[in-house]
Amino acid sequence: MVPRILNAADGGSPLLQLERQILDASAEIEHWFRSQWLSHTPPFYASVDLRNAGFKLSVVDTNLFPGGFNNLSEDALPLAVQAMSAAVERRCPDVRRFLLVPENHTRNTFYLTNVARLAELLQQSGLEIRIGTLIPEITEATPVALPNGKTLTLEPIIRTGNRVGVKGFDPCGILLNNDLSAGVPQILQGLEGQRLIPPLHAGWSVRRKSQHFACYSKVVAAFAERLQIDPWVLDPYFATCTKVDFHARSGEACLADQVSTMLKKIRDKYDSLD
Amino acid sequence: MVPRILNAADGGSPLLQLERQILDASAEIEHWFRSQWLSHTPPFYASVDLRNAGFKLSVVDTNLFPGGFNNLSEDALPLAVQAMSAAVERRCPDVRRFLLVPENHTRNTFYLTNVARLAELLQQSGLEIRIGTLIPEITEATPVALPNGKTLTLEPIIRTGNRVGVKGFDPCGILLNNDLSAGVPQILQGLEGQRLIPPLHAGWSVRRKSQHFACYSKVVAAFAERLQIDPWVLDPYFATCTKVDFHARSGEACLADQVSTMLKKIRDKYDSLD
Repeated sequence: MVPRILNAADGGSPLLQLERQILDASAEIEHWFRSQWLSHTPPFYASVDLRNAGFKLSVVDTNLFPGGFNNLSEDALPLAVQAMSAAVERRCPDVRRFLLVPENHTRNTFYLTNVARLAELLQQSGLEIRIGTLIPEITEATPVALPNGKTLTLEPIIRTGNRVGVKGFDPCGILLNNDLSAGVPQILQGLEGQRLIPPLHAGWSVRRKSQHFACYSKVVAAFAERLQIDPWVLDPYFATCTKVDFHARSGEACLADQVSTMLKKIRDKYDSLD
Repeated sequence: MVPRILNAADGGSPLLQLERQILDASAEIEHWFRSQWLSHTPPFYASVDLRNAGFKLSVVDTNLFPGGFNNLSEDALPLAVQAMSAAVERRCPDVRRFLLVPENHTRNTFYLTNVARLAELLQQSGLEIRIGTLIPEITEATPVALPNGKTLTLEPIIRTGNRVGVKGFDPCGILLNNDLSAGVPQILQGLEGQRLIPPLHAGWSVRRKSQHFACYSKVVAAFAERLQIDPWVLDPYFATCTKVDFHARSGEACLADQVSTMLKKIRDKYDSLD
């Protein structure tokens, strides 16, 4: 059940050793996760970007508006439906109608195939789903043909008082698959009586990558201590440079300094491992 | 994701019609289940016996100590692990070590293969598992060879104060796969600080089939009203005869009367359907 990382390296490689340590501690790890979920509500859905350096493996980004559901294998679909049902039961058991709000990519059919698959998974877990778009040009229900022969219908979001929906559909919840990187649109502000998942403060307009890395470091430190492993094998070093403005070409010296400091830190780490 | 009942009948049969009604209402049904789970904690695990009469389909028994895990198909195993993890998270997120207490069937290798599979599923969902047996003859760890080539180790349950375990293993929870039909053994009475799942009052020594049918009828009535279907297609008629003693051969007249009444009730039902 544990995802297996394909790796050409031989059995003595550090990553296989890490995999072995994680597999051996799986009962401990699952228990740790369960105890964490008691004090921290996990996000409804998320994806992470991994970097695999062969000797260490790190999460370098967490997307709270994940795409790529169309890349799930056929074998994984029943698991995805079951996981979706569990997420609904845990986060919003009272919701039965979700308005799914995708990104404004009408021409990216890969992305829209992902939205269609996500809608299917939600339907199969027992929810009514309609797709409400923020694209201003879409003013009526618009079917979009997908490469797989299916059709996705995008409908304009309608605001009625403090609620949003689409024509003839008043949802209990709004599931965002749109990272709101341009800010929170007026139409989604000040909603009442409808659950917004993820919450608006999870959008990239109010998140910082440096905060993500700082939080990730804390989690890795706790996890590594528990497993008695070096956090270095899971945690990327990071630094923040607030003075850079690429357009004005200012602050580049700050960036160079930070890189030098980081390289020294890595060098010292290697020295300590010898 | 909805289990499909294989049926030789053609498309116009009542059962296929029922299947269609259930599939069409799946969002409504899933929402109903989720709202029920909010007010009624579902059992950790259970199996039901189904009777399929071709035109109606009923649950006729619920086993809170289910067997047959060895009959799960390979495809179903990842789903079973995920379901087990969700049950642990929902019912006992704090448990990390389970003592699994099976039935006292040492010679029934099919049953023991089931126990071994159940233990594997629990392990894969991240729990430490040992098998504690109530069989008095087993006084030390005893490996039992299974038909599939694997080995199951049964260990005698040890009581220490108000806790039970096996040698070198103090579990947080005790998972019963033993229906305690002979009554609750002394060694499991008055435990403190250990979760017993299912609770002792779920054993057959304190349950009655007639209560089960009465509860099932209530659930079917609510479900059928919601779906606007006749509860008759899901609910078996039942009656209780408290005066029968098969050994003393007394009370047979009462049984005959109940059967006559039941047959008349069924006849009336058919008449009403014409």
